[in-house]
Amino acid sequence: MPEGNVVVVGAGVVGLTTAFTLASEGFDVSVIDPFPGRGASFVAAGMIAPLTEAVHGEESLTELCAQGAALWPSFAKRLSEYSELDCGLEQTGTLVVAADNNDREILRSRIPTPALGTLGATWATAAEVRALEPLLASSVRGGFLATSDFQVDNRRLLASLMRALSNLQVSVVQSKVLSILSDNNQVKGVVTEDGVHHASHVVLCPGYDVARIEGLPTADRPVIRPVKGQILRLFQHDPLLRLRRTVRAMIAGSSIYLVPRESGQFVIGATVEEQGTSRVPTGGAILALLRDACLTVPSVAEAELLETGTGLRPATIDNAPIIGPSLLGGLIYAVGHYRHGVLLGPITAQSIAEIVRTGEVPVSIAPFQPGRFQRNG
Amino acid sequence: MPEGNVVVVGAGVVGLTTAFTLASEGFDVSVIDPFPGRGASFVAAGMIAPLTEAVHGEESLTELCAQGAALWPSFAKRLSEYSELDCGLEQTGTLVVAADNNDREILRSRIPTPALGTLGATWATAAEVRALEPLLASSVRGGFLATSDFQVDNRRLLASLMRALSNLQVSVVQSKVLSILSDNNQVKGVVTEDGVHHASHVVLCPGYDVARIEGLPTADRPVIRPVKGQILRLFQHDPLLRLRRTVRAMIAGSSIYLVPRESGQFVIGATVEEQGTSRVPTGGAILALLRDACLTVPSVAEAELLETGTGLRPATIDNAPIIGPSLLGGLIYAVGHYRHGVLLGPITAQSIAEIVRTGEVPVSIAPFQPGRFQRNG
Repeated sequence: MPEGNVVVVGAGVVGLTTAFTLASEGFDVSVIDPFPGRGASFVAAGMIAPLTEAVHGEESLTELCAQGAALWPSFAKRLSEYSELDCGLEQTGTLVVAADNNDREILRSRIPTPALGTLGATWATAAEVRALEPLLASSVRGGFLATSDFQVDNRRLLASLMRALSNLQVSVVQSKVLSILSDNNQVKGVVTEDGVHHASHVVLCPGYDVARIEGLPTADRPVIRPVKGQILRLFQHDPLLRLRRTVRAMIAGSSIYLVPRESGQFVIGATVEEQGTSRVPTGGAILALLRDACLTVPSVAEAELLETGTGLRPATIDNAPIIGPSLLGGLIYAVGHYRHGVLLGPITAQSIAEIVRTGEVPVSIAPFQPGRFQRNG
Repeated sequence: MPEGNVVVVGAGVVGLTTAFTLASEGFDVSVIDPFPGRGASFVAAGMIAPLTEAVHGEESLTELCAQGAALWPSFAKRLSEYSELDCGLEQTGTLVVAADNNDREILRSRIPTPALGTLGATWATAAEVRALEPLLASSVRGGFLATSDFQVDNRRLLASLMRALSNLQVSVVQSKVLSILSDNNQVKGVVTEDGVHHASHVVLCPGYDVARIEGLPTADRPVIRPVKGQILRLFQHDPLLRLRRTVRAMIAGSSIYLVPRESGQFVIGATVEEQGTSRVPTGGAILALLRDACLTVPSVAEAELLETGTGLRPATIDNAPIIGPSLLGGLIYAVGHYRHGVLLGPITAQSIAEIVRTGEVPVSIAPFQPGRFQRNG
């Protein structure tokens, strides 16, 4: 077993994935979170979408997402070996469609044709996309199949991670971390509401309110804000009305996705709202999600609404995560994953493990170092 | 105390109101229902709307509704004396509006001007209705204030009725009635899943599935079907965004209502669906309710969705209830109240009490006798 021990603060998908990776490499790990397996990760749809979530001007993030997605199949396999639970990885691709001619233009400008070509996809006609998914509305104006973009069942993933940690004897402590203990610019542990946990390394991934933790260096204290996302979970009773794969639509300039699970459940998401820490499911958001979903796939009207959900995604100024060592020795950040927590879980975990093991920052996460906003400001 | 005892089958608003009225007049009463205070009454909005629910061609029902509404203020007062609980009766009227010019024409044809005049109401301009309710959308095209139409909080009403029955020592038995016991064409009681309850009179108001009860005379066995109604309950956090009174809108030819409670909660309803006994809250219905509500009162978009609900209203062929004695002596029907269970509760209860006391059918319910469909058929 390597020397020292690691405390991971936060048991969302990033924290749990990191703890699992460290523990499976032989590190002495514990995880602290007041509500393990909840938070934004529990509300997420579970998409692993390096292509369809790509945005112009965020090329280094897109590159990280592509590398992160590539790790997923082997990560899911390794996880299931430790947990003996399947996390619902589905690699049937994502069908991206445009609701009308205007949306087709928007979509074509957002997803550059070269990017499509690289991934072996080509623009398809309305008839072609409806052949792939007959449940699409007849008004749909073409699209493409993104075989690079797939999904995992976020709740099965969280359960699988928790089980794997349990099997690896990792303790998950239900408490809230209040401050970082340090001495002579070196981390010594954390103080929780219930006591002190000593550690040689502390990995911070507690979600949007990371900056409330005391004892962080001013020079790299993360600047993160909550971005509200509302999502719906429904159940399609009739097997003939179930989607074959994830569908994303550009509709009146907005983006919506429908993510089917094997069980007949499916997720419709997600709003992007700057509403501070409000967790209220609102009439307007539910209306917009149902409207756009029904316009894309009319049979959603027959599905049973099971659940409304609200997540507060941790977002940075440049939409990219903060992954890397703090100026305070032994403290490592893994925060601000925004819309990419599930997708970037394995690559973040792998990077953190390398930092803990060697002290070196892997090349892939070099653009995402803590303190980059302060240095630019 | 009068002779004999009464078993009331069904603890929705009609059954509970009837049991309360009988018990307060000194009768020995018990109530039987597998889920007292639930069913369609629990899902209802609680409107008492003789005018705005009136339909051409149903004049005798409209007349009954007008008489029924007139009883409500004194009934609510008497109930609160027995229960020491307020049932949330609000007599601020209902503001009826048209979403656009087309809807204005529909509304004017549905609510005849003479009827308006009788009630002291006149057609109001868009500016006038918005002065009454500033939260209305600017697209609203006029309407009128129906002071005759008001509301009660259906859940507080059910709680108040249950408390009053408890105070009157009326037993509410949680069981399901399977059949009517009779001998020599005279009711002797009912058989439940748990045993036998003897009675000189049985009042039947168990909801849409009354005909499943065995032992009813073929000649007046009620023909009732469930009509699915979906409803939403929301909460408006901001007091400035709360409606002052009930708002009904005609919107693209459909009718929608928003019923505010004192607490900031409000109800949006209701769909009218022929879906058999399905109780599933569906994406399409929730979408339609939220869409029409937001188009009428845009601030609904900011409200928190608390609950979706589905009720199965018991409907007859002519939309009017069945109230009166069966051919089987001692058996009395009070079923098929469809959209008017709350409104018609007190007048139904009063009529049933008179039948139990005198054996005579009051004039007001003469058009609603059991067996009228069979006789016409």
